[in-house]
Amino acid sequence: MVILLKQNPDQQQFDNLLTWLRGLGLTVHVNEGDKQTILGLVGNTSAVDIDLIEQLDIVEDVKRLTEPFKDVNRKFHPSDSVIRISDSVSVGGGSFHLIAGPCSVESEEQICGIAMQVKASGATLLRGGAFKPRTSPYAFQGLHADGIRLLLEAKQISGLPIVTEIMDLSQLNLFEDVDVIQVGARNMQNFTLLRELGKIRKPILLKRGLANTIQELLMSAEYIAAGGNENIILCERGVRTFETATRNTLDLSAIPVIKKLSHLPVIIDPSHATGVSSLVKPMALAAAAAGADGLIIEVHNDPQHALCDGAQSLTPEAFDDAAKAIRAILPYAQKYENGIPV
Amino acid sequence: MVILLKQNPDQQQFDNLLTWLRGLGLTVHVNEGDKQTILGLVGNTSAVDIDLIEQLDIVEDVKRLTEPFKDVNRKFHPSDSVIRISDSVSVGGGSFHLIAGPCSVESEEQICGIAMQVKASGATLLRGGAFKPRTSPYAFQGLHADGIRLLLEAKQISGLPIVTEIMDLSQLNLFEDVDVIQVGARNMQNFTLLRELGKIRKPILLKRGLANTIQELLMSAEYIAAGGNENIILCERGVRTFETATRNTLDLSAIPVIKKLSHLPVIIDPSHATGVSSLVKPMALAAAAAGADGLIIEVHNDPQHALCDGAQSLTPEAFDDAAKAIRAILPYAQKYENGIPV
Amino acid sequence: MVILLKQNPDQQQFDNLLTWLRGLGLTVHVNEGDKQTILGLVGNTSAVDIDLIEQLDIVEDVKRLTEPFKDVNRKFHPSDSVIRISDSVSVGGGSFHLIAGPCSVESEEQICGIAMQVKASGATLLRGGAFKPRTSPYAFQGLHADGIRLLLEAKQISGLPIVTEIMDLSQLNLFEDVDVIQVGARNMQNFTLLRELGKIRKPILLKRGLANTIQELLMSAEYIAAGGNENIILCERGVRTFETATRNTLDLSAIPVIKKLSHLPVIIDPSHATGVSSLVKPMALAAAAAGADGLIIEVHNDPQHALCDGAQSLTPEAFDDAAKAIRAILPYAQKYENGIPV
Amino acid sequence: MVILLKQNPDQQQFDNLLTWLRGLGLTVHVNEGDKQTILGLVGNTSAVDIDLIEQLDIVEDVKRLTEPFKDVNRKFHPSDSVIRISDSVSVGGGSFHLIAGPCSVESEEQICGIAMQVKASGATLLRGGAFKPRTSPYAFQGLHADGIRLLLEAKQISGLPIVTEIMDLSQLNLFEDVDVIQVGARNMQNFTLLRELGKIRKPILLKRGLANTIQELLMSAEYIAAGGNENIILCERGVRTFETATRNTLDLSAIPVIKKLSHLPVIIDPSHATGVSSLVKPMALAAAAAGADGLIIEVHNDPQHALCDGAQSLTPEAFDDAAKAIRAILPYAQKYENGIPV
Repeated sequence: MVILLKQNPDQQQFDNLLTWLRGLGLTVHVNEGDKQTILGLVGNTSAVDIDLIEQLDIVEDVKRLTEPFKDVNRKFHPSDSVIRISDSVSVGGGSFHLIAGPCSVESEEQICGIAMQVKASGATLLRGGAFKPRTSPYAFQGLHADGIRLLLEAKQISGLPIVTEIMDLSQLNLFEDVDVIQVGARNMQNFTLLRELGKIRKPILLKRGLANTIQELLMSAEYIAAGGNENIILCERGVRTFETATRNTLDLSAIPVIKKLSHLPVIIDPSHATGVSSLVKPMALAAAAAGADGLIIEVHNDPQHALCDGAQSLTPEAFDDAAKAIRAILPYAQKYENGIPV
Repeated sequence: MVILLKQNPDQQQFDNLLTWLRGLGLTVHVNEGDKQTILGLVGNTSAVDIDLIEQLDIVEDVKRLTEPFKDVNRKFHPSDSVIRISDSVSVGGGSFHLIAGPCSVESEEQICGIAMQVKASGATLLRGGAFKPRTSPYAFQGLHADGIRLLLEAKQISGLPIVTEIMDLSQLNLFEDVDVIQVGARNMQNFTLLRELGKIRKPILLKRGLANTIQELLMSAEYIAAGGNENIILCERGVRTFETATRNTLDLSAIPVIKKLSHLPVIIDPSHATGVSSLVKPMALAAAAAGADGLIIEVHNDPQHALCDGAQSLTPEAFDDAAKAIRAILPYAQKYENGIPV
Repeated sequence: MVILLKQNPDQQQFDNLLTWLRGLGLTVHVNEGDKQTILGLVGNTSAVDIDLIEQLDIVEDVKRLTEPFKDVNRKFHPSDSVIRISDSVSVGGGSFHLIAGPCSVESEEQICGIAMQVKASGATLLRGGAFKPRTSPYAFQGLHADGIRLLLEAKQISGLPIVTEIMDLSQLNLFEDVDVIQVGARNMQNFTLLRELGKIRKPILLKRGLANTIQELLMSAEYIAAGGNENIILCERGVRTFETATRNTLDLSAIPVIKKLSHLPVIIDPSHATGVSSLVKPMALAAAAAGADGLIIEVHNDPQHALCDGAQSLTPEAFDDAAKAIRAILPYAQKYENGIPV
Repeated sequence: MVILLKQNPDQQQFDNLLTWLRGLGLTVHVNEGDKQTILGLVGNTSAVDIDLIEQLDIVEDVKRLTEPFKDVNRKFHPSDSVIRISDSVSVGGGSFHLIAGPCSVESEEQICGIAMQVKASGATLLRGGAFKPRTSPYAFQGLHADGIRLLLEAKQISGLPIVTEIMDLSQLNLFEDVDVIQVGARNMQNFTLLRELGKIRKPILLKRGLANTIQELLMSAEYIAAGGNENIILCERGVRTFETATRNTLDLSAIPVIKKLSHLPVIIDPSHATGVSSLVKPMALAAAAAGADGLIIEVHNDPQHALCDGAQSLTPEAFDDAAKAIRAILPYAQKYENGIPV
């Protein structure tokens, strides 16, 4: 962190600032030029409030030069983290996983049927929503505990580990047998929830918020990791922009950016990002080509009931076609070594 | 809601769609042109999933023509809602309130001192954070239960009702004596929390999320109102844009837009929106001029300890100066009648 | 500007960098810590390409600490610039001006009629479009040379100086008798045009682009000023965000931010920013309250032909009402001394 | 286009509206419900000003149901356009092209050297800037006429057709021997320029503006096409968002979205979008995988002078490596039939 002082700073205020910074355990290098004095801070600056220093009378500007996260920082952990989910499924470190399933769990028949279908197409994890965050209070909110029970049945039958979203801390006891707990985009900065998830050891799928920077995503991961749970999979699912042709704007450059900054695996959700089923396959191929560690894709069950499925879901047949294309492209995708594209 | 069909739609699919729409209790007007068929839906379309219909093979486009919220909709409640907080303080309906206090509650001396100072300057509610959402897990997170206890002491001494933020449902029992429960921007779409707050009758201060539209803010208010709690105060506190000169971009046009769409009062938070103390007074004056129902402003206590206060906080003296200027401008501010500027 | 080097930089590359930086006329302070070396650059860094240095193998990060603009920088010109437009009209320095008129010039009767009406309501400049930037090639594009001729007639009759937009350098000869040349939002970074406008001495009204930062607006003003024309009035007219309730999001915090950074006057365009006539008055009051140097407001002429006027235009009666309210609020608006709110 | 009227509209105003709409050559279907009247407009609604109708007293809401562009609309031209550039180079229709070269033309040696290198790596067009749009007036602005002369020499030597940017209409005469004229992001809505480019028959490379929707990009292409020049190649190069890890956010979903809406080819510029050389290869692979018709990539010449090259440029060796990887992935990329992913 560097602090640029205004010309001719008040000596008393200058001394106070130095004392305060040193009190935080930082080493301060004072760099006096003819016109400007620059302070270089060395040490753990992650807890320093940059906005606060900026407001001091004698300060012209402040810039942070190092990332404010540690546990999830690639610098201190150069090789990829590999998140073990089951005996046969581990995410990260060069593997590639397809997570597939319906938006919402609706019935035993539905979820078990889809589970077997997506498994046949090559999916290695099953997704399905039991608690659904919906903009409208009048929309279907999921089957809750029943939904999780049905997911566990589908896991039993298919052998696929399951991923499902938690919406509130009060639901945590229901997730005991869930393999991966998803934290949705709207909860990415629910810090109370993140802190509690740091206390368990179950893998967490953390989705980037609609208006959150990559650095903020990594800071939220740091909340979980700081508690001792480093089993975190990051997920890019589109950010909010002025464009209306797609629901959100999928930021695929997040893949190489995250890989450079962090050792955690990163997967892509083309279904929620675009909100349009015909865009899922091209964006899935693009994500795989850029070197994502996996994809999470919505698949609905029954063409007869298509009206109750989301606009962004693929049929099992379309998913099978996409999965084949994804597998075919993987050998030609971008590879990384310690986070650097090669 | 209107649905534009593609040319020459499949008759079977067309009949299925009509049957399904009518099954939702909607009246469907079929408008057949030479080239296009348009369906006009009349009835309660708030639960219809627009994305879903858009994906049907025979559908070209779908547009919603009415707002998907009811309880908070000005159309069904033309006059302003007035939210009663105490015998002497009610927000909305032409009154104007200053809510002031520190970012975080730090000590009895601090919070009680500020309470008396902001009261003397004309504040009618006291704010202060006991649970602090912080991007970094290593930053100060608030005094929690102790913070609320100190706020209640400050209330006792000053007579000011208190506003403080809840971060998670599990904290709700601590808020029994709090006058107004604040839901922060990051929790605006924490639907589990909103739903529970609909079950109590305490006033809720609901802040707009950084990347949320005004319609989404009203939908979140609808979650609370649908549960029976219509004591809601809305708050604009800046949205996320590409501009970096301010922390967020304060959207003051939200004032007349919200007043037109909803009967709920709307206040402005210039401190968090700008993140810069020198911008607070000009933006506070602008908000008052546009017809806001109040302002929530951060005030820190002790110039000696200014280093521990946020970059966006005013000193009590600066707040006093701003409060005087705000009171002076109020008679010349925009007035509204049933949500329409006059 | 400061440069943070990576640990243990290659000595040869380090020497090359120092040589190159000194070759640019900069003084380089080398600040070697145990773990990090920081270079502090002193001198004119405005032409240094920050992206370029960032890519060097030995560089970890680079931060600019001073603004890359000089002629329009408040630091080197502490007092407000006052832009003289006519014997009786000068913008900036504490005065306040209403610029009003129709979106497009349509006929002599129309433009002269509106000119007299807005003058009677207190407008001191007349606006009207002769060259209209329209998203669609099929929409009305303005009367061009005829439009300017009609504006000059209206100026003759009303005595009001005129403001009108140039869309391309090739039109410049038609603007000889125009009092203020407007550069629209879409042309804010038409650098060829800006450079030519720097060669004349006529006042320029420079609008902020929809996706441009305040710093970029000031850099575009610098293009004009660097050529010798410092007669520049800046205009905020909304930025593009995800919100759809208004056409753009009006960023009123641009007023105090610009006043701090630059000595140039700044006015607000609430008509284009909101795109909704009922929002013009509340936003005009807010802009005046925040301390804008003026407003530019669309007024249409004939209620009989309202269909041909834009959704954002006020009737002359509504403008008269707004103008009265604006004048009434001015004494209570934010004041600035050398760009600092007082 | 559909118009929703308010309840109980004034009969006189209603009749006026009908008369006016029919006067525009539109057929109006009146759909009277118990509570709402909906008007369905059939005909060429591209010139109807939607904002204007929205402001009428009797109108509740208006929605456009069809795209406001015709010449570039896939609906009226189902098969891909193929843009012929030279005997051996045509863009679109299933082919794939690499356009490569330096940010700025600097010298004969530089541009001719790079031309031969990128040709050897498989590039089929040469890019290089002679007129450079730079945010700062103090930055290098290009060699202008000399730059174009040098590009033509490089074309002579390499046999590669050349692409270079025009910044202003006044430069057009210099572009006579240029093969493809580039319109940069900042000029995407320079309508005067677009209209003139519609009068020639030379291929135009039209870049999407930083804050422009895909629909606006297509409307700008419509300006050129409406003049008779349908030789247009569209280019996505990132949009402006709140994210700061990359210069802009590359919107790869623009590929399938544009292919569905328009018959024009679409290429991707990963260099400008990301602004970081290490992100160019992964994003180039992603773009190819999503089915782009080509890529435009910055390549700098001399590692000895790397300091004068942009942060986003590849070395010739890195470009050669990327080109090989791109060619390898192409057989597995998304294919389209008449704009639909297959």
